[in-house]
Amino acid sequence: MSKNPNQLHLNLFLHDTGHHEASWRLPEADPHANLSLAAHQYLARVAEDAKFDSVFLADSPAAWGDPGRRPSGKLEPTLLLAALAASTSRIGLIATASTSYNEPYNLARRFASLDYLSGGRAGWNIVTTASDAAAGNFGLRQQPSHMARYERADEFLEVSTKLWDSWADDAIVADKDAGVHARRDRVRRIDHRGTFFRVDGPLNVPRSPQAYPLLVQAGSSEDGKQFAAKWAEAIFTAQPTLEESQAFYADVKRRAAAAGRNPDHIIILPGIVPVIGETQAEARELDAELDRLIAPRYAVAQLAQTLRIDPERLRLDERLPADLPDEDEIEGAKSRYTLIVDWARRENLTVRELIGKLGGGRGHRTFTGTPLQVADTIQHYFDNGAADGFNIMPAVLPSGIEAFAAKVVPILQERGLFRTEYQGVTLREHYGLPRPVNQFGEAGGVSAGQGVRDVATVGAPS
Amino acid sequence: MSKNPNQLHLNLFLHDTGHHEASWRLPEADPHANLSLAAHQYLARVAEDAKFDSVFLADSPAAWGDPGRRPSGKLEPTLLLAALAASTSRIGLIATASTSYNEPYNLARRFASLDYLSGGRAGWNIVTTASDAAAGNFGLRQQPSHMARYERADEFLEVSTKLWDSWADDAIVADKDAGVHARRDRVRRIDHRGTFFRVDGPLNVPRSPQAYPLLVQAGSSEDGKQFAAKWAEAIFTAQPTLEESQAFYADVKRRAAAAGRNPDHIIILPGIVPVIGETQAEARELDAELDRLIAPRYAVAQLAQTLRIDPERLRLDERLPADLPDEDEIEGAKSRYTLIVDWARRENLTVRELIGKLGGGRGHRTFTGTPLQVADTIQHYFDNGAADGFNIMPAVLPSGIEAFAAKVVPILQERGLFRTEYQGVTLREHYGLPRPVNQFGEAGGVSAGQGVRDVATVGAPS
Repeated sequence: MSKNPNQLHLNLFLHDTGHHEASWRLPEADPHANLSLAAHQYLARVAEDAKFDSVFLADSPAAWGDPGRRPSGKLEPTLLLAALAASTSRIGLIATASTSYNEPYNLARRFASLDYLSGGRAGWNIVTTASDAAAGNFGLRQQPSHMARYERADEFLEVSTKLWDSWADDAIVADKDAGVHARRDRVRRIDHRGTFFRVDGPLNVPRSPQAYPLLVQAGSSEDGKQFAAKWAEAIFTAQPTLEESQAFYADVKRRAAAAGRNPDHIIILPGIVPVIGETQAEARELDAELDRLIAPRYAVAQLAQTLRIDPERLRLDERLPADLPDEDEIEGAKSRYTLIVDWARRENLTVRELIGKLGGGRGHRTFTGTPLQVADTIQHYFDNGAADGFNIMPAVLPSGIEAFAAKVVPILQERGLFRTEYQGVTLREHYGLPRPVNQFGEAGGVSAGQGVRDVATVGAPS
Repeated sequence: MSKNPNQLHLNLFLHDTGHHEASWRLPEADPHANLSLAAHQYLARVAEDAKFDSVFLADSPAAWGDPGRRPSGKLEPTLLLAALAASTSRIGLIATASTSYNEPYNLARRFASLDYLSGGRAGWNIVTTASDAAAGNFGLRQQPSHMARYERADEFLEVSTKLWDSWADDAIVADKDAGVHARRDRVRRIDHRGTFFRVDGPLNVPRSPQAYPLLVQAGSSEDGKQFAAKWAEAIFTAQPTLEESQAFYADVKRRAAAAGRNPDHIIILPGIVPVIGETQAEARELDAELDRLIAPRYAVAQLAQTLRIDPERLRLDERLPADLPDEDEIEGAKSRYTLIVDWARRENLTVRELIGKLGGGRGHRTFTGTPLQVADTIQHYFDNGAADGFNIMPAVLPSGIEAFAAKVVPILQERGLFRTEYQGVTLREHYGLPRPVNQFGEAGGVSAGQGVRDVATVGAPS
């Protein structure tokens, strides 16, 4: 383990021209960056040169929103990160993938493959996909209930970890003289029989450098936090204030401990939107310019969708309607719904003001200021039990990460808060997390009582 | 179209240490090459330097056979080729993926993504996956019938092509001043309602450089050939003799014409196993050394599995049993079953001899000889209506492709039979195939009668 407990972690949330919805309209923006390998390679290299722990891609298996609003085509994350595995050497690569719209055998295999391709740098942001549009692409008329999605996710992780453990670490002997490549008794079927899945195994990829990809999660609902306490090793979260970050941090660490886990092995990474200027005034001007570029017609439709109400009921210069649905009625992204409604009411925002804030950071905290101010705020969060590190979501890319890497990271490094060189090799090592122990037994023999079954020699010729 | 009709095509079938099952036991072999990005990058670069049209990866979503026999872990092909997209610039990248064990939305998206990542170099080898082991990883007790798999494959292609056409080529306008990124009326739901699939669409990836990946197919059963005549643009096939290759070639071209297609737009690529020596004797010695390294215990078990009989019934120095099942009883890889049985009977082979031939080329034709002899045989096939090009399956890698690239390719180039430089940019251009026309109408407007529906602005926030 090479982690320095006094150092924080940094992840770059990749998002073509930036997280601000109007960022693509700036003169500097490449409006085709979302479909460009070169644009993503550049962002990953800037982050790697700055010694970031990881880069991350969000995802949903559906076209989302009005395609006029901003670049909306999204390359599939595991493939895009496989391409970045070949273009980088140290930085971690975290892909979002849905447990509701994949089969565990296929997805466990893709992450094991990404882990090999990257030499142990794969991470999986586990989502259950709150979206009727996604459901409609997979044979369903509407999405499964929130609870059903989390039940499936739990069993999906159970199957996935069994598959990742289906080869012992010492299975491959590659004995040319004896003509034995792998020891048949060290590769096991899993014979999973559950509510959602029936999977024989074994996986057709041996145990990978990290054994499991880094397991990341981002839901903040009750179901989401319980799932995270059981499975997640890193958490992305949207917390608009320091106090809310502190409460969330304490809550998740407590839940992890209650689940019998080491709370240091669950890394809390709030999302922040840095808007950096040489002066505070310059930073604020960039912020304001971006908000001016937001096209309200798209944003109002989107907000109405999230709130599950008729767009006609939203007036730009009025407050939100009083009679919104309860969170309990929302089968979608519960925690996001509540965050938006609470925020609007707490700050007494008009629809126009709310849209401006959502367009910039989508509920994440915006840090607007000079590099020193941004670094101070980061340290304040880190020193006060609100974060183990940050999910950096620049409003504008690539300039936002260039500025952060060139001006904020050196301040954090001078203060001893961030690494100046990678110490470990794998993504788990960057985050100070252990390589999972094989649940079927480690090298040195499997006891007869474990009911291990040989891999069957079935299957069609390749 | 940059194709020269007088030139043949070459694909390299990537297979870690080589197609011969004992190749990993040679002193030169890296027995971990199957899990190594660097090993695959090297093979792809050798093929690209030799101006090959493409590289190709086979696949089945299951562990297959005894893991002792040879390196059996397989990285997922679309991810591995995404990594190779970042490591190469011209060569085509063809991944095998199953229509039986994927969802069309996910897979269509992965291939569209690979096409973007590679700048138009993606190909899809469409398989229905003949394997009970695979079925057992996806909730089934046994694989669906051969016919059911092909019916699903046909509808899978229908859904996939609709998804690839769900964005018009002129959908993206990226108008920063107007704040319109894509024209909403040029992105369409597909609302597919079929026997196997219900998919709303649109795809969340715009129409890619090639529109569709190159569509490749390899089944040679009746169902397989009919499917190929309808959908395939290139065909990999195992034909042990010139005459069988000629018959297959004529049959497929005839079927394509009968289906209303241009027979020149279906490229026939028989697999060949070149075993090259400076002299014929040297080539034969390499061949013999490899066969000596085959471990019969694995090979007999495998052959019995393919023939659906008890391994006890196979004796190394006897012929195959007389009472084998009919092809009609085989729900697996029908064409492969028939090829093996016919071959053993035609050449009156013992089990040991049959295993040697299968271990080397798995039913593909082995061309053993000097570079000149191999080039002559290739030209003979090409000149006599047996092939449009070849799927090169070196018995040993990387040395087999190094020798082929260094010694056979220059002879073909001198004879004007093979390109000396890439002329086109995309994989379709390498093979002389057109970019598909959008079935929902091309740029310039959609007629009202086509029933085009707007994309709905539904879905949860990202």
